[in-house]
Amino acid sequence: MINNHRYCVIMCGGIGSRFWPYSRTNRPKQFIDFLGTGRTLLQMSYDRILPIVPKENIIVVTNAQYAPLVKEQLPDLQDDQILLEPARRNTAPCIAWAAWHIAARDPEASMIVTPSDHLITREREFETSIIKGFEFVENNNALLTLGIKPVRPETGYGYIQIGDKVDDSISKVKTFTEKPNLELAKVFLSTGEFFWNSGIFLWKAATIKEAFHKHASNIATQFESGAEFFGTAREKEFIENQFPACASISIDYAIMEKAPNVYIECVTFGWNDLGTWSALYDNSSKNKDHNVAQNCNLLAYNSTGNIFAVDGDKLIVVDGLKDYIVADAGDVLLICPKSEEQRIKQMVNDANLKFGDKYL
Amino acid sequence: MINNHRYCVIMCGGIGSRFWPYSRTNRPKQFIDFLGTGRTLLQMSYDRILPIVPKENIIVVTNAQYAPLVKEQLPDLQDDQILLEPARRNTAPCIAWAAWHIAARDPEASMIVTPSDHLITREREFETSIIKGFEFVENNNALLTLGIKPVRPETGYGYIQIGDKVDDSISKVKTFTEKPNLELAKVFLSTGEFFWNSGIFLWKAATIKEAFHKHASNIATQFESGAEFFGTAREKEFIENQFPACASISIDYAIMEKAPNVYIECVTFGWNDLGTWSALYDNSSKNKDHNVAQNCNLLAYNSTGNIFAVDGDKLIVVDGLKDYIVADAGDVLLICPKSEEQRIKQMVNDANLKFGDKYL
Repeated sequence: MINNHRYCVIMCGGIGSRFWPYSRTNRPKQFIDFLGTGRTLLQMSYDRILPIVPKENIIVVTNAQYAPLVKEQLPDLQDDQILLEPARRNTAPCIAWAAWHIAARDPEASMIVTPSDHLITREREFETSIIKGFEFVENNNALLTLGIKPVRPETGYGYIQIGDKVDDSISKVKTFTEKPNLELAKVFLSTGEFFWNSGIFLWKAATIKEAFHKHASNIATQFESGAEFFGTAREKEFIENQFPACASISIDYAIMEKAPNVYIECVTFGWNDLGTWSALYDNSSKNKDHNVAQNCNLLAYNSTGNIFAVDGDKLIVVDGLKDYIVADAGDVLLICPKSEEQRIKQMVNDANLKFGDKYL
Repeated sequence: MINNHRYCVIMCGGIGSRFWPYSRTNRPKQFIDFLGTGRTLLQMSYDRILPIVPKENIIVVTNAQYAPLVKEQLPDLQDDQILLEPARRNTAPCIAWAAWHIAARDPEASMIVTPSDHLITREREFETSIIKGFEFVENNNALLTLGIKPVRPETGYGYIQIGDKVDDSISKVKTFTEKPNLELAKVFLSTGEFFWNSGIFLWKAATIKEAFHKHASNIATQFESGAEFFGTAREKEFIENQFPACASISIDYAIMEKAPNVYIECVTFGWNDLGTWSALYDNSSKNKDHNVAQNCNLLAYNSTGNIFAVDGDKLIVVDGLKDYIVADAGDVLLICPKSEEQRIKQMVNDANLKFGDKYL
């Protein structure tokens, strides 16, 4: 039986600029059928959590401009399950709002907080891990983060070093390390003490509220000032006034790297943050020429190792292209070597400077 | 004063398959603002002839499916100035119909026949040459073709060798030669006796009708059988029944290479048949990186020598592409090295086989 005090917060406000123009401000990555499965990343995140928490306890936090997309893609959500941020303020204010909102509804609540735009495989292991995590945070004054066992010396992820073990999968956190260089990543991999930071968290609403009071008191004070409004008709107005005044700061920086009661559950399900075109390429099915064709018909000659990502059914005919990204969406077409993808953000800036924001 | 017996026939039924997908069956090359001038190639052909023949004597022959495009682009045309072919039958039947149609309206008519999808520069010289040509065919029982003085050993064009001179620019035709190899083209260029076949013709309607009777009698017989219908309400029905039964044959093959009274006027205006992407590239204005951007905003990095041709205002962001064709129109995107453009026809065939005709 599903525990009615368990909640899920799906963070869904990102703009996915690294995948521009396939992901655009008006329809970011999490709202796209990014892997060609027939479900968008947001829908996959929702489907994945359904066996674990009651449907009515799933809360989506997103930017106000995406309200229509969320309602269209998750028609079962009630309006009070969608928290609309009036401004983009990174993850800490987003999570604080969700915590105050949920705690007002259920003081005994525990919650999982998860991004909406990652890939997770081996969902049975995911389910088992999440349930164990819920049980741990419900019985301990703990902030729990999920760590993924690394399978390659990835330099694009954050790493968490484990400390004293609680049991075979849960430990105290010793250190957080942002993206290491390749040499360091190889050392991390070899020691067995380092795990990828998945950005998936579990805690009791009361525990994370307390952590905000201790480690990010400005944010706690702002939300506490509206304590009486959460769960009432005045919550929306309060948020519209207060939220934009919050500092823009990540939950890792505001809480996780400071709090003494941070734990890691080392999990074994498959995970990829789909943070780069190369990651998308690696996680997509390829044809015999090792090309990936997302949402398009492809006729390729002398072309291998490319990823074609298209918004809307289209025929792409390509000759003599190797290891490129071809992304076509609405009024923007990007053609860029996969090896240069880290420059796409600069290209978006250049487009903005030269042509204004209509292409963002 | 403009001579009221002079007519112009603009042939406008081609499908421009070499420029697929920029040129597509539903909107071929001649209906596109192919050079980014603000006027389509058809409109430019019309504008060019306006100072020479009376507006009401300009006849456009096209495939029935393009009637709306012709009317939209040339709103001054009356319905009886647009001849709609019920089937594609190459240039000889097209020209025969126009000749019978015009002769019925004006037995003294002379006419220029011109493609609608070529580039012509130095239009004052064009005007002078055409008027001289009209005067020649009006005073002689002559079929006159315009020859362009070659400026490079082009292997993609047909050549005409001049024979006995009539005056400083008009001569009898000695031979026609289809696309020569490079060696031969260089010889042609060096002798000064060979001129590019422009596909622009002048003659009296009566002279070309007589030539059809002598050299393509099947076609002449077909059109003669409806002599009473031309210029009447029954012309349309007659054509719909008879035209599809015509042999599909070019005017060069049916008449010009056979008739004894064929002359060439060697002209000096600039001309290009815009028959290849490379020709379009050469005749388009380039930015500092030697890229051509047709109908699009371009943000190019490490990219030179490309041509970007887009249907509809779009932003193209490209990195690391050299000497490519990028053509984007509706639901088709083509990316192909300029050096491989002769393979595009095969790609169109492949697309047709694999996905049906929806992308043609």
